Amino acid sequence: MNALHTPLSAEDQALAEGVLAGRLRALAKSITLIESRRPEHRERATALLEALLPHSGRAMRVGISGVPGVGKSTFIEALGLHLIDRGLKVAVLAVDPSSSLTGGSILGDKTRMERLSQSTSAFIRPSPSSGSLGGVAEKTREAMLLCEAFGFEVVIVETVGVGQSETAVAGMTDIFCLLQLPNAGDDLQAIKKGIMEIADLIVVNKADIDPRAAQMAKAQIKSALHMLRPASPNWTVPVLTLSALKNDGVASFWAEIERYRTAMQRSGEFEGKRRHQALAWMWEMIDSGLRARFRDHPAVKKNLPALCQAVEDGQSTPASAALRLLGYLG
Amino acid sequence: MNALHTPLSAEDQALAEGVLAGRLRALAKSITLIESRRPEHRERATALLEALLPHSGRAMRVGISGVPGVGKSTFIEALGLHLIDRGLKVAVLAVDPSSSLTGGSILGDKTRMERLSQSTSAFIRPSPSSGSLGGVAEKTREAMLLCEAFGFEVVIVETVGVGQSETAVAGMTDIFCLLQLPNAGDDLQAIKKGIMEIADLIVVNKADIDPRAAQMAKAQIKSALHMLRPASPNWTVPVLTLSALKNDGVASFWAEIERYRTAMQRSGEFEGKRRHQALAWMWEMIDSGLRARFRDHPAVKKNLPALCQAVEDGQSTPASAALRLLGYLG
Repeated sequence: MNALHTPLSAEDQALAEGVLAGRLRALAKSITLIESRRPEHRERATALLEALLPHSGRAMRVGISGVPGVGKSTFIEALGLHLIDRGLKVAVLAVDPSSSLTGGSILGDKTRMERLSQSTSAFIRPSPSSGSLGGVAEKTREAMLLCEAFGFEVVIVETVGVGQSETAVAGMTDIFCLLQLPNAGDDLQAIKKGIMEIADLIVVNKADIDPRAAQMAKAQIKSALHMLRPASPNWTVPVLTLSALKNDGVASFWAEIERYRTAMQRSGEFEGKRRHQALAWMWEMIDSGLRARFRDHPAVKKNLPALCQAVEDGQSTPASAALRLLGYLG
Repeated sequence: MNALHTPLSAEDQALAEGVLAGRLRALAKSITLIESRRPEHRERATALLEALLPHSGRAMRVGISGVPGVGKSTFIEALGLHLIDRGLKVAVLAVDPSSSLTGGSILGDKTRMERLSQSTSAFIRPSPSSGSLGGVAEKTREAMLLCEAFGFEVVIVETVGVGQSETAVAGMTDIFCLLQLPNAGDDLQAIKKGIMEIADLIVVNKADIDPRAAQMAKAQIKSALHMLRPASPNWTVPVLTLSALKNDGVASFWAEIERYRTAMQRSGEFEGKRRHQALAWMWEMIDSGLRARFRDHPAVKKNLPALCQAVEDGQSTPASAALRLLGYLG
């Protein structure tokens, strides 16, 4: 530990040791601590995270997205069970910014993944349920680090297509997988929403229902991908057809993930992406912190509405309004 | 004038009056003033802009982009001459962030638009030639306001596909037009670069060379557009074929611009977009100002490199590094 780090209380030292020793109660308690909004909890959470951070980073971080009805739970359960069969320990987290409104729409109900949740090699945690997308995503990202320190070898982060949650999940995982329905139009929606261009791997699920439709969807997605900017020179986004319900294609899916990891690690992109992601999170938090401080400044608070109005009405240029507001900061 | 505004010196009062009276020398001098980086000039420029701002806003602001070789100059000259024939006064500005390196690659040479530059109803001004894209774009945006106060009824803002310059130009104009070559692949490049999705109007230029290829390109672009998110519920992006060289299709192009303006004004989107653009510029300038102040803070300057390194190396979480850095601001 160097000067960068805050000291840990004896209680939290025990918590950290519990996480490192693989005690599930310690992990759950730690995640509850980092999700807390109480300032004294925030301080403890920061110290705990810093203590555990050097032990994190060893899991494969897999983001999974897809519209409601695409079969995410069934897919994640099948994938999780497959990985457990292979001797891996799997954590499933979620980013669902709508959960504060709905009381937890995804992963809130563990019975959704009944068999997986009964395994001692799996840990399922619903989305933190309050705050902005940025806040929810940051908590999930921190929970992921705790899960890694605990010893999970695969961390799956699920999200529904709400707002920018896919971008947030893609920004915290090593590989971002998009589940698609074998319906004409689902791929167009994904392109329109800008999700397809951030996907590293695309899965046409429910292929058992209509194999021909699934093949057609696959071909359409492939041709659409040709038009998009490739994210990496070392990876061509594969499109798989799969039936999670019949457990058909799940092994091939994981084989693609491993192929991706190998390609990315060999080229150095794997580590580079993680470094880039960490710095991007830091700057995002700095920017939003700066913006919050700015808005909280008494003189800004007092004059911002009138200056916004003046800019909107063409009575003030954006530049002079910005300068004036920045000037209040002294 | 209310308390928002800085007083104008007698010299600058004369400059403002010159612009309003339609004196070209006053306009050119004013643009030179706003482009200056000297702090005392910045202050004068702010006051001048604020004085002239209430007289701005009456031009149709047309953004035009396209790769080198697409025939932008020929097109803009043909369009400008067409508008002048219709009795309109036309200003042509540019955003070219590469011009500081190349010494002004677009519009630097007025002979490119020889006939247009000789008309007393036209004003052609090269891109400001120094600074970041944000700085270059802001100067062009301010020059546009001066041109409007002067009385130009159409302001054309040209840009080449360098970095994010298209987004900047789309963010300061009422309609963003993309010029395309009748080559297979040019449309794909535009999609990949994310330019096609911000275009309000697409033109396949040089249609005279191979009319069949131009029609094919048009069909391809139309089908590509179906996959993109529509920017407005009140406007379907039209795709035109045109030959600027033969002056064929230029009148139809302007008719589409007028149709766009009517549709947008009727729905209220026209004014809404301008208000939104002005506020977005203000917030962008505030954010970059906050970021600059942050980076300039002595304690941040001193500790930022080590903390960035700690975050990249996984020794510090992004959150704790961000908090620590923000804490230095006091």
